[in-house]
Amino acid sequence: MSVTTKATIASFGGKLLKLSHQSKVTGTEMNFNLFLPPQVTTNALHKAPVLIWLSGLTCTPDNCTEKGFFQHGASKKGIAVLYPDTSPRGANIQGEDESYDFGSGAGFYVDATVDPWSKNYKMYSYITEELPSTVFENFKQLDSSRVSITGHSMGGHGALSLFLKNPGKYKSASAFAPIANPLKAPWGEKAFKGYFGESDWQSKGAEHDSTELLKKWKGGPLDILIDVGTGDNFYKQKQLLPENLVEAAKSIGQDTAVNVRFQPDYDHSYFTMASFADDHVDHAAKYLFA
Amino acid sequence: MSVTTKATIASFGGKLLKLSHQSKVTGTEMNFNLFLPPQVTTNALHKAPVLIWLSGLTCTPDNCTEKGFFQHGASKKGIAVLYPDTSPRGANIQGEDESYDFGSGAGFYVDATVDPWSKNYKMYSYITEELPSTVFENFKQLDSSRVSITGHSMGGHGALSLFLKNPGKYKSASAFAPIANPLKAPWGEKAFKGYFGESDWQSKGAEHDSTELLKKWKGGPLDILIDVGTGDNFYKQKQLLPENLVEAAKSIGQDTAVNVRFQPDYDHSYFTMASFADDHVDHAAKYLFA
Repeated sequence: MSVTTKATIASFGGKLLKLSHQSKVTGTEMNFNLFLPPQVTTNALHKAPVLIWLSGLTCTPDNCTEKGFFQHGASKKGIAVLYPDTSPRGANIQGEDESYDFGSGAGFYVDATVDPWSKNYKMYSYITEELPSTVFENFKQLDSSRVSITGHSMGGHGALSLFLKNPGKYKSASAFAPIANPLKAPWGEKAFKGYFGESDWQSKGAEHDSTELLKKWKGGPLDILIDVGTGDNFYKQKQLLPENLVEAAKSIGQDTAVNVRFQPDYDHSYFTMASFADDHVDHAAKYLFA
Repeated sequence: MSVTTKATIASFGGKLLKLSHQSKVTGTEMNFNLFLPPQVTTNALHKAPVLIWLSGLTCTPDNCTEKGFFQHGASKKGIAVLYPDTSPRGANIQGEDESYDFGSGAGFYVDATVDPWSKNYKMYSYITEELPSTVFENFKQLDSSRVSITGHSMGGHGALSLFLKNPGKYKSASAFAPIANPLKAPWGEKAFKGYFGESDWQSKGAEHDSTELLKKWKGGPLDILIDVGTGDNFYKQKQLLPENLVEAAKSIGQDTAVNVRFQPDYDHSYFTMASFADDHVDHAAKYLFA
């Protein structure tokens, strides 16, 4: 599980690494970025916890790295940030590059079960298992026992669903403008039908739908931070449905489990993430350093 | 001097406006961005000072807006940030789009004196006169008596040379990786020869060369902040020459006029600007609120 370093860039006192590896899970070369905070680049004895950032539709590891401003807060707190890609690339599947919301750049953090996608599109296994294994094997200055997760839009869906499917695996979760109930949203329906098939998409999709997962949550008290802009067109188009997640929390008696902050006028862009990135790093830090 | 608003984006508690206007000086439509800090978007009585950001080669107003994170510090301090373009666009001059370092995206903040550039390529007059006039006429919540200037690479040359050519016009100046002695650098020589002609480029160029201007400075004590990364390839290639600016300061008995901070390993990218943007906002704030 060797890793190729494509670039080493100084950023906020630490190092931003542009990396790639040959994934056995997806069968493709996968790019990812890793920010190492100054606490580990200058002190060999320090071990840093990790915040995983899952990006939204169309994004590569670079978008949030350049525009999300997470290094600012992560540098202060001593947290590494892992920026994976959003899908396999170059799998040579017919139609993989035809849609912005399906195929390349749109893996939806699930393991596809139907042809032709099931061979390569295994982003759930990739993000929960292979990528962190690879990272912790190659970067001993990171602490595999302290990992939190966050993300945007499709990546917000990814962050919340991975967190809720794997109690205890992540210390905390937060999201920007997450697709919080994909079974009820056009983006989610298209992705689940494509990756799970017309007959199974609702049952298999429910296993990856944060609202459905939260209704069945048996773990302890939750504290999920979510920011949604009131100027977000995809929120207005009901692609996100954060209210459904709040209702699900109430249905299990955890009224305060999901803290949705509606940010006035903010849109779906990285300007919103940059504006509140520090808050999400602080939220993760509260649990990573508890 | 009307302005067209192309987008209004919430950012760090304030508003980021994407704007354009028909420039009489350049004869073209010019795009620019303006960040209004929360202090003026929420309080009609407050007037904000302005920090002008001049971008480097190839950049539009959007690069620093998205990747420089000046909004972070400007929002806290209550400073507006003005992001102009780097040249006229679409002037329909033969060859204007052929080089990354001359013509489009490379106006070098001078008024060209030779054909075919002299008709449109008047970025010095545009930045020092027409653009601020337009901005202050259209945005009464900004204080025209308090303006500072900063920039990167070609824009660092612009910031320093405009500051040194116009004593008192700007409250302070700073720069990232500025082309500090363009007469001695390949980029500067190419630009000055192109915009001023083969016979006049050295004499006219000297009027825009920060090192030459500083040698003749008759104003008061200076305090110019400059960040240069030791991993900056253009620094290594002697395109920047900040040492010459430091020597010029010594030659006029102002040994501390130019504070060049060599940042270890940092490169020429926006990751460097993002990492130290707050420091440059703080530097400007010291003089804008003096």
